[in-house]
Amino acid sequence: MDAAEFRKRGKEMVDYIADYLEKIEKRQVFPDVEPGYLRPLIPDCAPQKPESFEDVFKDIEKIIMPGVTHWHSPYFFAYFPAASSFPALLADMLCGGIGCVGFSWAASPACTELETVMLDWLGKMINLPEEFLAGEDGQGGGVIQGSASEATLISLLAARTKTIRRVQSEKPELTEADIMGRLVAYASDQFCATLGTTPCCSFDKLLELGPLCNKENIWMHIDAAYAGSAFICPEFRHLLNGVEFADSFNFNPHKWLLVNFDCSAMWVKKRSDLTGAFKLEPLYLQHHHQESGLVTDYRHWQIPLGRRFRSLKLWFVLRMYGVMGLQEHIRKHVRLAHQFEHLVLQDERFEICAEVVLGLVCFRLKGSNELNMALLKSINEAKKIHLVPCHLREKFVLRFAICSRTVESTHVKFAWQHISQLATDLLKTWEQSHHQQ
Amino acid sequence: MDAAEFRKRGKEMVDYIADYLEKIEKRQVFPDVEPGYLRPLIPDCAPQKPESFEDVFKDIEKIIMPGVTHWHSPYFFAYFPAASSFPALLADMLCGGIGCVGFSWAASPACTELETVMLDWLGKMINLPEEFLAGEDGQGGGVIQGSASEATLISLLAARTKTIRRVQSEKPELTEADIMGRLVAYASDQFCATLGTTPCCSFDKLLELGPLCNKENIWMHIDAAYAGSAFICPEFRHLLNGVEFADSFNFNPHKWLLVNFDCSAMWVKKRSDLTGAFKLEPLYLQHHHQESGLVTDYRHWQIPLGRRFRSLKLWFVLRMYGVMGLQEHIRKHVRLAHQFEHLVLQDERFEICAEVVLGLVCFRLKGSNELNMALLKSINEAKKIHLVPCHLREKFVLRFAICSRTVESTHVKFAWQHISQLATDLLKTWEQSHHQQ
Repeated sequence: MDAAEFRKRGKEMVDYIADYLEKIEKRQVFPDVEPGYLRPLIPDCAPQKPESFEDVFKDIEKIIMPGVTHWHSPYFFAYFPAASSFPALLADMLCGGIGCVGFSWAASPACTELETVMLDWLGKMINLPEEFLAGEDGQGGGVIQGSASEATLISLLAARTKTIRRVQSEKPELTEADIMGRLVAYASDQFCATLGTTPCCSFDKLLELGPLCNKENIWMHIDAAYAGSAFICPEFRHLLNGVEFADSFNFNPHKWLLVNFDCSAMWVKKRSDLTGAFKLEPLYLQHHHQESGLVTDYRHWQIPLGRRFRSLKLWFVLRMYGVMGLQEHIRKHVRLAHQFEHLVLQDERFEICAEVVLGLVCFRLKGSNELNMALLKSINEAKKIHLVPCHLREKFVLRFAICSRTVESTHVKFAWQHISQLATDLLKTWEQSHHQQ
Repeated sequence: MDAAEFRKRGKEMVDYIADYLEKIEKRQVFPDVEPGYLRPLIPDCAPQKPESFEDVFKDIEKIIMPGVTHWHSPYFFAYFPAASSFPALLADMLCGGIGCVGFSWAASPACTELETVMLDWLGKMINLPEEFLAGEDGQGGGVIQGSASEATLISLLAARTKTIRRVQSEKPELTEADIMGRLVAYASDQFCATLGTTPCCSFDKLLELGPLCNKENIWMHIDAAYAGSAFICPEFRHLLNGVEFADSFNFNPHKWLLVNFDCSAMWVKKRSDLTGAFKLEPLYLQHHHQESGLVTDYRHWQIPLGRRFRSLKLWFVLRMYGVMGLQEHIRKHVRLAHQFEHLVLQDERFEICAEVVLGLVCFRLKGSNELNMALLKSINEAKKIHLVPCHLREKFVLRFAICSRTVESTHVKFAWQHISQLATDLLKTWEQSHHQQ
């Protein structure tokens, strides 16, 4: 395929994607396929000779789409949102076209510098303390990781290296292994200090944890993977109070800020804590501008060596939505969550299981876990909407997460009517079978 | 931006990318900017109100392109290739459009199943032993990681968990920390068992290392990040002999197989070694088809939880090039490397510093390291071509890597004439200044 054919096929693909997203509501949100469905549909091995684009293209609807869970359907209320927007898609196309690998400043200066500045923009949007920003000569700064798990791992490794070095300088007689065996990582049953946990979107008390960590010389990492995006709205910013005690902070614009996966934003107060732990300097990666106030080599900030030009997505989305556009998106989702909450509260068969703070509603039928498992089963087997459950203490709970960029009040109402009807049907059978027993 | 505007802008972006790649030769391969160039060109913080696509679009040439190192220029001979092709760009657009997060089978069955089958296709293309393939009921299988570093880390962690469990079962009196302190990871100065090292593309002797590792119960991970793609050509497959002794194997189609970054292919003989080390099962990620012969939950195979639909890139590229098209690409690069090698060998001022096996030529002026550093400096300051150096033992060496998909014999000839002329100029000044001293 040459550039001329790419012009033609690329435009067909743009139309295909626009069609897909415009009409996604008409597709069944969860697929009908059984495990192993795909293998028999395609050959055993790669073709020796090239196939045409048409051949590949027609297989998208035939082979791929029947097995896709449609995360951007307005009937998808599972997990947490996966961000998606047209500006982000455009930026990702450009990222692929440029195709640079930004492991060092010299490997593509624009790739590194735009990232540093975009993380400053984003940090300012959530009013992060200035120590976390790079500015022109700050000690802190931000980086785009692939996922919150990577940010947590990076923090853990940096904290471990820092602590081992501190203890070694105090007690030179101890070996690294001696020290390693005594290190402790504190976490709740939802792990590190978390703002907006996945099961129920609960918040750790940073204002209590933070001073303790600082006093005891414990690295505090805060994971706000989902909730972090909400902090761009002044009315939710108080949830981030206490971040000033943290060493590192992370949230995922690829969850709730309309930036397609992957874009996990991480900030540290002292960039030297990361670069000290991960520095890697073979000759072929050195350049005459070595790490300084102005020059960042992001390979020292992450596990992988290579990295894509992901800050383009942030740049496009922040500019083409504007802060106000993004605030509107967050507020709409929170409003829809409260709408669902109110619908649940009006039905006395149901209960709300956790405070609705942002875009997640945890709810259940008053009754046994088995009953709620049966309800979820009937919801997900009907495949009109899609939900996943969680455990809160001993209770089996249904999670209703506002996910799609295009979800509206009508979809939420439909979802509730559907759930409510399935509950009615279920309770009828359930009581009968109870009676018979 | 709605779907209608995306149709328009997406097509403009397709044309922009096609123009960029078609005329990339006319751009200076390495940028003129100095560290910190970008920050003063853009505002201090994100705009409150949305900006238009036109505003953002015109900033690409104004702000981004002046700071881009053009990895796909046919005058780029630095590092190793970063793969790029039109079929991969199209597939990545589709990946963004679908925008699913494939951490479990249920989260998007197509995303998981296509990946498993594509890794089987790719494994067969390089004639991997059958134990590494998933098939319908194999114990092994493949996964797409973001980078070779992640594959190495995953192997190391899996090996550690496996060894700790084995030792604990043999000596229950030892704590995990006791065992950890005694674990040893063997590596050369280029790390784990490597096929095609970055400095000089050298090859470890798997047929000697492998039996030793197996005998001593040592996990053997093989990293063939760059070289692995070449094994699709029968004439290079012998370089992989000995892989049958390995526990895990990895190479990067995103380097040399025309699949855009990121796509790092990793295989293991026993998938249970990975899932045993990383298994994570909160209720919201469980589904009624739990891990079985047919069902894979890739979140247990990697550090991140989330993952994009990256196998689409492999599917598009393997089908639209065919095995023969990809073999042609590899063979062209190797041929061009030998062309450059011959040109160097005809000039008795120069020497070749390592056997040219694939697409990399290590060479230098006969003489001091300082002389060669000066030569590299004059090459990279002229910015007609771009190279990076390496150290081989005590010697400072220049690396000439065939990188671009569109590089041809004429570009290689031009590069050599240019280097040769700069060497002539340099040697003149060098001898004069030597004389004066």
